[in-house]
Amino acid sequence: MKQIYGAVTAAKGFTAAGVRCGIKEKGTDLALIYSEVECSAAAVFTTNVFKAASVVKNLETIKAGRGRAIIANSGNANACTGEKGLKDVDYIRKFTADLLNIPVNQVFTASTGIIGQPMPMDKMDVGIMDAVAELDENGGDAASLAIMTTDTRPKTSAYEFEIGGVPVRIGAMCKGAGMICPNMATMLCFITTDAKISAGLMQKCLTAAVDRSLNSLSIDGDMSTNDSVIMLANGKSGCPEIIEDTPEHLLFEKALAQVCLELAQAIARDGEGATKYVEVHLVNAASYQDAKAAAMKVANSPLVKTAIFGQDPNWGRVLCAAGGSGASIIPGKTSLYFGDVKIVENGEPIKLDPEVARKPMLEKDLRITIDLGLGSESATAFTCDFSYEYVKINAEYHT
Amino acid sequence: MKQIYGAVTAAKGFTAAGVRCGIKEKGTDLALIYSEVECSAAAVFTTNVFKAASVVKNLETIKAGRGRAIIANSGNANACTGEKGLKDVDYIRKFTADLLNIPVNQVFTASTGIIGQPMPMDKMDVGIMDAVAELDENGGDAASLAIMTTDTRPKTSAYEFEIGGVPVRIGAMCKGAGMICPNMATMLCFITTDAKISAGLMQKCLTAAVDRSLNSLSIDGDMSTNDSVIMLANGKSGCPEIIEDTPEHLLFEKALAQVCLELAQAIARDGEGATKYVEVHLVNAASYQDAKAAAMKVANSPLVKTAIFGQDPNWGRVLCAAGGSGASIIPGKTSLYFGDVKIVENGEPIKLDPEVARKPMLEKDLRITIDLGLGSESATAFTCDFSYEYVKINAEYHT
Repeated sequence: MKQIYGAVTAAKGFTAAGVRCGIKEKGTDLALIYSEVECSAAAVFTTNVFKAASVVKNLETIKAGRGRAIIANSGNANACTGEKGLKDVDYIRKFTADLLNIPVNQVFTASTGIIGQPMPMDKMDVGIMDAVAELDENGGDAASLAIMTTDTRPKTSAYEFEIGGVPVRIGAMCKGAGMICPNMATMLCFITTDAKISAGLMQKCLTAAVDRSLNSLSIDGDMSTNDSVIMLANGKSGCPEIIEDTPEHLLFEKALAQVCLELAQAIARDGEGATKYVEVHLVNAASYQDAKAAAMKVANSPLVKTAIFGQDPNWGRVLCAAGGSGASIIPGKTSLYFGDVKIVENGEPIKLDPEVARKPMLEKDLRITIDLGLGSESATAFTCDFSYEYVKINAEYHT
Repeated sequence: MKQIYGAVTAAKGFTAAGVRCGIKEKGTDLALIYSEVECSAAAVFTTNVFKAASVVKNLETIKAGRGRAIIANSGNANACTGEKGLKDVDYIRKFTADLLNIPVNQVFTASTGIIGQPMPMDKMDVGIMDAVAELDENGGDAASLAIMTTDTRPKTSAYEFEIGGVPVRIGAMCKGAGMICPNMATMLCFITTDAKISAGLMQKCLTAAVDRSLNSLSIDGDMSTNDSVIMLANGKSGCPEIIEDTPEHLLFEKALAQVCLELAQAIARDGEGATKYVEVHLVNAASYQDAKAAAMKVANSPLVKTAIFGQDPNWGRVLCAAGGSGASIIPGKTSLYFGDVKIVENGEPIKLDPEVARKPMLEKDLRITIDLGLGSESATAFTCDFSYEYVKINAEYHT
């Protein structure tokens, strides 16, 4: 399994484009991903009650487990836009499908940006035509730029591995989420592969990978109206079909997990106003659910995040957050580390030179480890600190 | 039912004191509340797994439903202090009980302050002796000052009403919580009454009152290691005993709810770095659980809080937070108001002059109302905005 270049066009048979449609004030704002043949499709969407129009339509489309194109815009979320929003998605899908000469039910859509504003439909025809015209087998980078909002850099990942002696590729792009991207906190992620795999098995792999990566980001508590992860597999590598519970299945799952992990890390690193990247490792929990609940509670705690910004080894705030997560925790069995420095052992602080405890807090990357001593399950949450700049960005961002 | 003065010594038969023990660098830091006769007792304690030593002991003590004194210190939380912490509580209770000449199991303790540090036991004897010596029927104010940490002002409330023609009083004091008081986020609240009421019925009233007030504060997600609400009823008003499901029961419940409500509001108003006081009203929900979950999710959202600091009517963030709460919500039936200005109707934004929408955001107090249109249940969450000052206080506070 080796890291390669190329984002969503790393895999064979995929082309992509990123063009300026004019929804945002400047920069490209419309991305298109296209497969030369029909694909198996899998997806994970926001669980928020308020779902953007594109998510409502995608939830219908994904039922068939098939797809061939994804068209995504930045600058307007098309959320809380009622019937008009749904009709606009219908139009965008139909227009894109007709230009690509594919069935409309093979087109997924996605949006990120301001909510409660109607889509500027007068601009979409030309934008979509441009995107279709610019589809290119090296278009992955351009597409990854076109979905950015407050992201400071594009986020992509791609890996190659062998299935039955045939090189197979997975490539992906995403944009920021959560506290990280407060303009409706939207996370979009699109993944392509030239592996041959059924929609059902790919969905299992994707659900597991996303749960331990993109769904383990600190995102202010919950998914936004627009969060979408969409994956297409076109089989163009020529590899044999990946069958469940085989070594090939495990290898595919591992590669996909790695891609999703790197994207989640990239999003946390690009957090708004972030001065530090933080991983919260919950280890030796009684269950994965416990581990994840406690890790996310710590990663979501403003008290923990501001302490990290202040470079303070405030282990009390960390334990307090974990202790309120509902996870099974026995204080007398709980230990805590900042970096490699053990701070708490069996529920009580270790006597340490304050400078030793503080040292890991001065690094750019901080790893917090909580060892529950109750089992063998673990989970990691990805987040960043909470700075003046975060408040500034979010207070000064106006609707 | 009329508001009166006097805090925890408003009710007959209670004395209190607040003295300097030397735990904090300056100011009074030890409070004592005492009843001249044995009381019915009720309490609500933190659900956090990491419970301070005093909470562990109080949980045992409250089982009997009896009590007569509360001794509380600020400056040290006596949390994550292991066996020594528990022994220290035993010592403090015994020393206090002996001086007051009452059984040790009638003494409750409480602590707030730094965690993971042993209690300065060499200072406690003199402190407790001073507190006992200074017990006074006008000592409520002094006691309320002695439990403050980062609070900028003491918080008290007291009401008088009649039971069977006899004036009865409820008085209370508390200190800050949650995001509000990040030094372990501790909320302490002590309530006294001269009503005659069984421990069981008082517990029912207290649980309900706290749930809709002190447990509806935005406290960074969860209760701290030390959170405690302790209530004593000594019957000294001479009123007839309050019996369940009578008008007197309802009146007592109402007065207690009012006291707890005012304390919760006072804590939110005194939020660290807060520039605005915020109430989130969830109305017409299908269930109280839904209403409370959605209200708390909005009140806990850093995105909502920073928008309020920026005086931005960002209804999208509010709906997004509510939509991720797990509450039953149908977007097409949901309406939202800032102050009295309707912003969203049936899930879609109303066309408004931006200045009209922004006007309520400029006030010191903000009321956000979300009407779910699904039932008749409601809940209110109490919080404040999220300012530069909040980050500063929490980043610069060092362990």
